[in-house]
Amino acid sequence: MTERPIPPSGDKRVLYGYWRSSAAYRVRIALHHKGLAFDNAPVSLIRGEQSLAEHLARNPQGLVPVLYDAGAVLTQSLAICEYLDEAYPDTARLLPAHPLERARVRAMAQLIACDVHPLANLRVLKYLEAELGLDAAGKQAWVARWLSDGLAALEALAAPLAGDYLFGDAVTLADVCLVPQLYNARRFDVDLAPYPLLRRIDATLAELPSFQAAHPSQQPDAA
Amino acid sequence: MTERPIPPSGDKRVLYGYWRSSAAYRVRIALHHKGLAFDNAPVSLIRGEQSLAEHLARNPQGLVPVLYDAGAVLTQSLAICEYLDEAYPDTARLLPAHPLERARVRAMAQLIACDVHPLANLRVLKYLEAELGLDAAGKQAWVARWLSDGLAALEALAAPLAGDYLFGDAVTLADVCLVPQLYNARRFDVDLAPYPLLRRIDATLAELPSFQAAHPSQQPDAA
Repeated sequence: MTERPIPPSGDKRVLYGYWRSSAAYRVRIALHHKGLAFDNAPVSLIRGEQSLAEHLARNPQGLVPVLYDAGAVLTQSLAICEYLDEAYPDTARLLPAHPLERARVRAMAQLIACDVHPLANLRVLKYLEAELGLDAAGKQAWVARWLSDGLAALEALAAPLAGDYLFGDAVTLADVCLVPQLYNARRFDVDLAPYPLLRRIDATLAELPSFQAAHPSQQPDAA
Repeated sequence: MTERPIPPSGDKRVLYGYWRSSAAYRVRIALHHKGLAFDNAPVSLIRGEQSLAEHLARNPQGLVPVLYDAGAVLTQSLAICEYLDEAYPDTARLLPAHPLERARVRAMAQLIACDVHPLANLRVLKYLEAELGLDAAGKQAWVARWLSDGLAALEALAAPLAGDYLFGDAVTLADVCLVPQLYNARRFDVDLAPYPLLRRIDATLAELPSFQAAHPSQQPDAA
């Protein structure tokens, strides 16, 4: 086994992301929440910079986020968040201690990251338009369908688990995924009225400085 | 916080799955690999049993797998696999010990579970047919596009990491995801020729008794 190319930035922590990417937004929240300083390196998904050789060398998937940390190149937002939690265990933890509680938090995070987010992704919407000829209304219906299905299930799953946040009264990986997904839902005019619990938790999280600092509107590349 | 309804089976370990579901297949591999005995409880996705009130009480998402373990009801295949690894740490581990190595394994698993599998899911294919009027060829092109993209990236990501398996010489969560995804790819006649590394690892894994026992063709509900 050999490592992927050593990042040119050496040991500096750098997040390659995009202001409006939900997956990059998750990692920004995790970094701020854990108090880990980082540099922002915008990759414009609109200008197609994710497909340049330079970015594909960082991530063969041609996606963001990519995190450079301690000389390593990391991909996949949830894997990055869990890495940060394990590599820097002395700052605020994103996962509880007990295996069953960890499973509850991961199930909510993965409901969003595996069953909701990938279907409303930019590359998928591009395919729907370019290959299947969907217009704006058709794409909106597509997004609304998968977001509504997922958020309704999350509302039910969270009901017996939630406190101030999705799992009890401490911020977890599930909250890290919730906020970007609801930001995304609002962009696509998905009706959030049926999810009072998720909306209440989202509003509580929005008061936290770490979530505020990670918000898309606060990023250097925000249009 | 209150728990979800106590499973009627009490403390017995029961997997609610479907023989051809990739996500259920992952959990079967993990259970067999860790030597954890379980009962199979088939939920027929073809007959729509996943949408019955009985199953929605287990999982509001109306998806499989659901695992009953030690009185708890667990959802989301990767969360279940990590739970099994943490709750039963004395049997074969699915994740390495070092945070960076764990991040590598999780990134490969999540590449499949977040960026490939959800797009070729039964519910998505149903939508493409019923709402967008795609025929068999259109659905095959859709599946081939996302599987090819993902598998090409995985082939590149794994190149510097693989040994006998995707991460070195021990079976990990990444392998647990690879085998069901390639099974799925073959069902949809996706060309696997461009991925010699993945094919070699898949063939090596196919020799293991735990992977053989978990294969769809060996399940009681296989058609």
